[in-house]
Amino acid sequence: MGFSRKDYEFLSEIGLGSSNLGCFVNGSWKGSGPTISTVNPANNQKIAEVIEGSIQDYEEGMQACSEAAKIWMQVPAPKRGDIVRQIGDALRSKLLQLGRLVSLEMGKILPEGIGEVQEIIDMCDFSVGLSRQLNGSVIPSERPNHMMLEMWNPLGIVGVITAFNFPCAVLGWNACIALVCGNCVVWKGAPTTPLITIAMTKLVAGVLEKNNLPSAIFTSFCGGAEIGEAIAKDRRIHLVSFTGSSKVGLKVQQTVNERFGKCLLELSGNNAIIVMDDADIPLAVRSVLFAAVGTAGQRCTTCRRLLVHENIYQAVVDQLLDVYKQVKIGDPLEKGTLLGPLHTPTSKKNFEKGIEIIKSQGGKILTGGGIIESEGNFVQPTIVEISPNADVVKEELFAPVLYVMKFKTLKEAIEINNSVPQGLSSSIFTRKPEYIFKWIGPQGSDTGIVNVNIPTNGAEIGGAFGGEKATGGGREAGSDSWKQYMRRSTCTINYGNELPLAQGINFG
Amino acid sequence: MGFSRKDYEFLSEIGLGSSNLGCFVNGSWKGSGPTISTVNPANNQKIAEVIEGSIQDYEEGMQACSEAAKIWMQVPAPKRGDIVRQIGDALRSKLLQLGRLVSLEMGKILPEGIGEVQEIIDMCDFSVGLSRQLNGSVIPSERPNHMMLEMWNPLGIVGVITAFNFPCAVLGWNACIALVCGNCVVWKGAPTTPLITIAMTKLVAGVLEKNNLPSAIFTSFCGGAEIGEAIAKDRRIHLVSFTGSSKVGLKVQQTVNERFGKCLLELSGNNAIIVMDDADIPLAVRSVLFAAVGTAGQRCTTCRRLLVHENIYQAVVDQLLDVYKQVKIGDPLEKGTLLGPLHTPTSKKNFEKGIEIIKSQGGKILTGGGIIESEGNFVQPTIVEISPNADVVKEELFAPVLYVMKFKTLKEAIEINNSVPQGLSSSIFTRKPEYIFKWIGPQGSDTGIVNVNIPTNGAEIGGAFGGEKATGGGREAGSDSWKQYMRRSTCTINYGNELPLAQGINFG
Amino acid sequence: MGFSRKDYEFLSEIGLGSSNLGCFVNGSWKGSGPTISTVNPANNQKIAEVIEGSIQDYEEGMQACSEAAKIWMQVPAPKRGDIVRQIGDALRSKLLQLGRLVSLEMGKILPEGIGEVQEIIDMCDFSVGLSRQLNGSVIPSERPNHMMLEMWNPLGIVGVITAFNFPCAVLGWNACIALVCGNCVVWKGAPTTPLITIAMTKLVAGVLEKNNLPSAIFTSFCGGAEIGEAIAKDRRIHLVSFTGSSKVGLKVQQTVNERFGKCLLELSGNNAIIVMDDADIPLAVRSVLFAAVGTAGQRCTTCRRLLVHENIYQAVVDQLLDVYKQVKIGDPLEKGTLLGPLHTPTSKKNFEKGIEIIKSQGGKILTGGGIIESEGNFVQPTIVEISPNADVVKEELFAPVLYVMKFKTLKEAIEINNSVPQGLSSSIFTRKPEYIFKWIGPQGSDTGIVNVNIPTNGAEIGGAFGGEKATGGGREAGSDSWKQYMRRSTCTINYGNELPLAQGINFG
Amino acid sequence: MGFSRKDYEFLSEIGLGSSNLGCFVNGSWKGSGPTISTVNPANNQKIAEVIEGSIQDYEEGMQACSEAAKIWMQVPAPKRGDIVRQIGDALRSKLLQLGRLVSLEMGKILPEGIGEVQEIIDMCDFSVGLSRQLNGSVIPSERPNHMMLEMWNPLGIVGVITAFNFPCAVLGWNACIALVCGNCVVWKGAPTTPLITIAMTKLVAGVLEKNNLPSAIFTSFCGGAEIGEAIAKDRRIHLVSFTGSSKVGLKVQQTVNERFGKCLLELSGNNAIIVMDDADIPLAVRSVLFAAVGTAGQRCTTCRRLLVHENIYQAVVDQLLDVYKQVKIGDPLEKGTLLGPLHTPTSKKNFEKGIEIIKSQGGKILTGGGIIESEGNFVQPTIVEISPNADVVKEELFAPVLYVMKFKTLKEAIEINNSVPQGLSSSIFTRKPEYIFKWIGPQGSDTGIVNVNIPTNGAEIGGAFGGEKATGGGREAGSDSWKQYMRRSTCTINYGNELPLAQGINFG
Repeated sequence: MGFSRKDYEFLSEIGLGSSNLGCFVNGSWKGSGPTISTVNPANNQKIAEVIEGSIQDYEEGMQACSEAAKIWMQVPAPKRGDIVRQIGDALRSKLLQLGRLVSLEMGKILPEGIGEVQEIIDMCDFSVGLSRQLNGSVIPSERPNHMMLEMWNPLGIVGVITAFNFPCAVLGWNACIALVCGNCVVWKGAPTTPLITIAMTKLVAGVLEKNNLPSAIFTSFCGGAEIGEAIAKDRRIHLVSFTGSSKVGLKVQQTVNERFGKCLLELSGNNAIIVMDDADIPLAVRSVLFAAVGTAGQRCTTCRRLLVHENIYQAVVDQLLDVYKQVKIGDPLEKGTLLGPLHTPTSKKNFEKGIEIIKSQGGKILTGGGIIESEGNFVQPTIVEISPNADVVKEELFAPVLYVMKFKTLKEAIEINNSVPQGLSSSIFTRKPEYIFKWIGPQGSDTGIVNVNIPTNGAEIGGAFGGEKATGGGREAGSDSWKQYMRRSTCTINYGNELPLAQGINFG
Repeated sequence: MGFSRKDYEFLSEIGLGSSNLGCFVNGSWKGSGPTISTVNPANNQKIAEVIEGSIQDYEEGMQACSEAAKIWMQVPAPKRGDIVRQIGDALRSKLLQLGRLVSLEMGKILPEGIGEVQEIIDMCDFSVGLSRQLNGSVIPSERPNHMMLEMWNPLGIVGVITAFNFPCAVLGWNACIALVCGNCVVWKGAPTTPLITIAMTKLVAGVLEKNNLPSAIFTSFCGGAEIGEAIAKDRRIHLVSFTGSSKVGLKVQQTVNERFGKCLLELSGNNAIIVMDDADIPLAVRSVLFAAVGTAGQRCTTCRRLLVHENIYQAVVDQLLDVYKQVKIGDPLEKGTLLGPLHTPTSKKNFEKGIEIIKSQGGKILTGGGIIESEGNFVQPTIVEISPNADVVKEELFAPVLYVMKFKTLKEAIEINNSVPQGLSSSIFTRKPEYIFKWIGPQGSDTGIVNVNIPTNGAEIGGAFGGEKATGGGREAGSDSWKQYMRRSTCTINYGNELPLAQGINFG
Repeated sequence: MGFSRKDYEFLSEIGLGSSNLGCFVNGSWKGSGPTISTVNPANNQKIAEVIEGSIQDYEEGMQACSEAAKIWMQVPAPKRGDIVRQIGDALRSKLLQLGRLVSLEMGKILPEGIGEVQEIIDMCDFSVGLSRQLNGSVIPSERPNHMMLEMWNPLGIVGVITAFNFPCAVLGWNACIALVCGNCVVWKGAPTTPLITIAMTKLVAGVLEKNNLPSAIFTSFCGGAEIGEAIAKDRRIHLVSFTGSSKVGLKVQQTVNERFGKCLLELSGNNAIIVMDDADIPLAVRSVLFAAVGTAGQRCTTCRRLLVHENIYQAVVDQLLDVYKQVKIGDPLEKGTLLGPLHTPTSKKNFEKGIEIIKSQGGKILTGGGIIESEGNFVQPTIVEISPNADVVKEELFAPVLYVMKFKTLKEAIEINNSVPQGLSSSIFTRKPEYIFKWIGPQGSDTGIVNVNIPTNGAEIGGAFGGEKATGGGREAGSDSWKQYMRRSTCTINYGNELPLAQGINFG
Repeated sequence: MGFSRKDYEFLSEIGLGSSNLGCFVNGSWKGSGPTISTVNPANNQKIAEVIEGSIQDYEEGMQACSEAAKIWMQVPAPKRGDIVRQIGDALRSKLLQLGRLVSLEMGKILPEGIGEVQEIIDMCDFSVGLSRQLNGSVIPSERPNHMMLEMWNPLGIVGVITAFNFPCAVLGWNACIALVCGNCVVWKGAPTTPLITIAMTKLVAGVLEKNNLPSAIFTSFCGGAEIGEAIAKDRRIHLVSFTGSSKVGLKVQQTVNERFGKCLLELSGNNAIIVMDDADIPLAVRSVLFAAVGTAGQRCTTCRRLLVHENIYQAVVDQLLDVYKQVKIGDPLEKGTLLGPLHTPTSKKNFEKGIEIIKSQGGKILTGGGIIESEGNFVQPTIVEISPNADVVKEELFAPVLYVMKFKTLKEAIEINNSVPQGLSSSIFTRKPEYIFKWIGPQGSDTGIVNVNIPTNGAEIGGAFGGEKATGGGREAGSDSWKQYMRRSTCTINYGNELPLAQGINFG
């Protein structure tokens, strides 16, 4: 069960071996699907093997999960909160190992890997408090001796399908809330990050076991589209939370809608940063760097479009080219690296194709534009000067490619910002209150995240995370996102002996 | 312009004539589509003629509406509230005429017609207050010198497609909220209730005009599926609120989703009343009568299934048969009538077909079951004894047909209640707290409206109206329903000079 | 019953005569106290006579009010809301006459008189909506088969003691909310504005009567300290809302506390405007004029202290002196007048005394400083240059006297702003986000109203109105102010058969 | 430094010795006041010595605390939440020792001692979530280009004065919330429970130190009235949270009000349980036992009055007498003990005096009524039959004395319930919804805690804890109690160039 490389041995501290069963089904680890290898994107060498789930595994898991749901929804919410608190403590005790694994298997740099795990810990802490605040309402009734209540009850089972780029934080956003809300969780992680799926599941399972709760409250599968489709079609799953591309998300939504289930979608972004001529340029440049190059451009909140006021356009571009030159590319686990590899060889190919299309649509490469010859999936951080109307600008190329464009007025900048199908995040750099409040107002940015003087990425968990239009409309993490994980009933209780009717109607 | 009958002359007091243009487009009345006749369901005779809208009318209307949206969303919300207040006053001044028209054109009895208009007036009053309470949040940020805001901004344009059974109240639920939220409204009323659409629009238009606001803020069309499809496909319409069958609603949803718009669906119901053996039987029987026979069984909240505890089954059925005998059937405008006609001859035919299917699936007609020979669309109020598992019981037959069934335990009753695809309304009659709280709790009824000791219908506007599963998941009227009519942005404003990152990440 | 002057005849349109009974007691107009004359502050001539209430009148009124309370608190909140809506409509129909009366009897200019009445109308509209949103909460319980509810119930009777400067708006803030919350209202208006008290009461009474409700739901008294004390001591009055000086307010509070009643205090203000060196100076100057001279400096939100950054100090003072020269002083009912008389000859004397003290403490009169010889109580709008540390600056001189002072840094300006005992309102003029957010943040202004680029006065009803420290801590009008008018109960309902204890305690 | 008894040695595990300094001042342990002995109420023997604080210690502590406040209020709320999370973990690690100490020094039985500590831990967990939800509001403005915000900022310093009966939980309610809200805490524990004060402070101090925060954020004093008065008078302390008798509370309130500070009062209770004739009698009897005998009747929520429907009066009293006989009295640390000693010899004397008064007012002792001869402060659990109108029934005798009385109707029972000056807690036992909803409605119980089928005591932290009338009106723990620990500002920001006025006023 030893690992091929010494520096993978830390994986044993979080329950992983060189070969791993990929399904957590009714408290047991199983796997009757295909065996796959998970690889390090920095060198495309195998880390370990995982046996994925089959439809039989899935069905077995769902049956147990359905039974567990009946028990879990009856556990009082504050008690559920205490379980989530213990999950948070379990993660805290393995923060470094998990962060390292995220970096190793996904390819993001270590501080981002650790930050991603920290985000789940934050979510746990937040959810514990929430478990005593999943409040309904007592609403005044217009009828004497009547009482109106708005009740929030658990849905039952929440399916969570996550993507490779945040292989565990997105699970955290969903599972922490879903669990305190009284739902069981069925998780399918990304096919290319199975070790993270397994390691996370083991920590959660340990807490459930210690508390003598049915392990099937948390059920997880490593697997691909087959499992994903099963989740989308499964009437036992009341809410499907899906993170991925707009294209796949739309299909998931239609499948779920056809069975009258609920969907929570976090789909593509195409996020702009606007730099006004009164901006703090060094602050803006640092922010663009983090937003465009961070996670190798593979965040849904990555800045893909930079809109600069014509008066400072050249200054901003020059400074940006300067900092791009200093970006250290390399092993994401190495200290000082800012840009790790893309997640897969396919991503690298897509980058190359993307650059071709960009050029064919009039894009001018200001820096980068090439891949880096190596065993890993490394590409150059790239800046492109291009028209906001080019077709390619409307799409999400999941790579560190930044489109730069010029504008004259805030109104024009907002029009460009809003001109893409996606609506996740956007940001402005300015010091003028009139710009700030227009930007966040009715005729401002139409995205779900609207920032000022910070990048498009790096959201805090206290706010609601998600976007409009092709981004899918879902909201995760803070604010009242929890309402999506519960069903609402408007209850009117007549405790008198009469039958007065609303709107003063007299019947019979 | 005279009406064919003297008793239609009140229509001229609300701006209607014997021939009417059916589109309110940019402040003018138009109509270049087909001319249709609107008829009285009590005798199937023509009331008046209406010229419906064409796609050209629609396009013209939408262009004006898009322009108006830019202005309306900038009007401060409390000022928008004052406009809605004036609309309420305008309706109040024509309450009796509008109520009479609803009764005449839709076929419901006069107290229900007036009650329906009163409901819009209530919505106006409620929305005025709401116009100062469309509150976002200030959320503590984890970063120094940062501020998080959750902002709610207008969507732009809301499309409202309503059904014949509530030809104006549903518009009221949507339009009052949509307007105070800063949205323009595009309304397509039911093809068979065009006079109501026109009369309502004239009252709203009068208010807009008096306040020198663009009339296109409220744009309305009489028309059929063609206009409906245009609305569903129109990218300028950010939210489509649709009321109708689950089947059509699903199609609307898919069309709207494909263009990444938002949907608010109020679809079919299949609502049960449970009578426990400790219930106040006379209260229950009166409630069932109102819920099953009211509006001739054509409410989405009509009680279609009556679940009676075996111990009191016979007593309840006997009393019910007794009151059914006394139901006065006839002209809905006549005093004392409890059961008016179905809305159309087709409804009558569907009733006949439905009864055939019921019989073929083992249903036993306890009373009614037949149509009433007359010029109008009258049918008998019907009670059927049938198994909860019969296929026909899972469907919504839009007529005064009540299925009666027996149960032994609350658990069994809840299982039957939850066993249909629809999830709108349900009600229990009992005096035991343990039953009441189980019923509204995690393992209770799965509908959106969950009542106790009142019928399934007759909701107050202060609560959120809508249902789960095949009912579509939308919520209208009170509570936080307004959020669906706005777009949410999570805004983080950095007002300092540093760039601290969330989750303590250190980048570069 | 004729008035002494033709131009007082409009008073008969709002139910007033040359002699008036001053108590509305159980639906009748009475008065067995002293007869007083109410005068026009612009000429100190009698407008009409009023017979004030005695303690016997008071006791009679309170007995009826206590009986009415039992009925009113059982009327469903939305029905109460409809009563308040009708009150709003009644006021709307007499807006001009009431506004004119406010101007005549109190002395403020007509636009402000009408604005004050408009504010009550706005409060009515707001409260109607609120009547369906006085929501309690359903809170998750940690115990199985338990439900926690936070309920809000009426207090019973709310006493409202108002001051001369807002003789009806403050009643409006309190009464609209108190009424929808299910409380009866006992009002004592200011002794010098009895006609307003009577006229307002007649409009409210008309609505109650029309709806066949007990008139004692609204009980009012013209009178002085004797009635005020009776209210403070009366155990039947659950909340006393008092507007007046900090000194009297403190006494009221102690009296009410001794009987364990609740107090809502709106006491003295001492409000500063800070002008930073990046401010829009003309906007600031216009704002200071409105804030310092409006209502002749007799608003609790009047700007009394102007803090100007040293770099622009001279420019601001010069512009201010310039606009002060153009202030038209005279009859408040005359078009174009900006500065009417002080309310009483005593106020005029206090002004004179105040100027003497100012001079003795080193204050330098830059403009004004004198009274205007006339029949009325007119004084000059005054600007004084003075040290922020002078004792007189810590007090509220209720007259159009503005203290001007210089500062170097925002920190210093905030320290001066916060250095007075009072904490009602304050405002900054700046265009820098860092200043704005510091100003409204933990180390910014410590007042209850904290404005940016608008004056200290002119609050909207949607927010909570009130202040900290010697201003008394109460909040009126919008936000969750209504909670002060209700009593909160935390209810835990056990609907099971077990007795699990919180915190997992095991007893016996 | 050794303890006199072996079984006190566990105290060294929580930082206590045989002699202890009683003030935590600017991170150091001091004490220049008198030396006192803390004793075990079960035998009145010394546990350890404590040197109390002097006014000089106090002043030194407050100066440091004031400095610390400037830093702490700038720490972002979620970071403050993480500190409170760590405090929770520190308590969790010493739960058994702290619980044992509470039992030893206060005298309550061990399960209650541990439960009390658990309650603080629960508060910590709750407050962590709250630290991201201290939300203000964004409120729609009626003016174009204006934005209204309701901001919540820290107060600065919160003084907490606690009583002997909950020597640490009440600190927990206040401190957890005060800290996440950004306030420093100054704590004076009860003079007779100094070891608990010191032990709790040490745990908190350890967390602050580990995080390199100023220790003066948490400042605590062992001491008596002198320190208490200093807190009440200290203008640097913005809120004083006081728990104690109504008499002392009223004095504290007046002192604090005179300096225009804020008060949060948790004063006397006089709590009734009503048993209706349809009640589950065994459930009621068990509840009364816990409510009347638990903590030896020294909870503010202790049931002091038992109101029984005449039909079941004898049955309830008989069952109660029966269970009272089985109550095991003795050492609170011993397993099985239900009734420990009163806290002090004075309490014992007060019990004796109380029994005399009871008898003199016609009370009939049904069981108990005597003290138990022993070294400790033990008394018999007592049941008294008495008229609800007896004067003694209106007062709070802090001992296990239960008054039993009879009633005929719910209305009468509610009148008796509401007839005392205090208004903390009350409870009904019934199975009828009409009774339940009347009880919690406008004409029901007037206490702050209103229970159904559970005792008057044993509140969960998720709801707001506190009472009306002579109980003081404060609310602690859950719901929106946090608002009392912050100051609210209504902010209006004009980001345009115009100066439109509210209420449409036109000035100048």
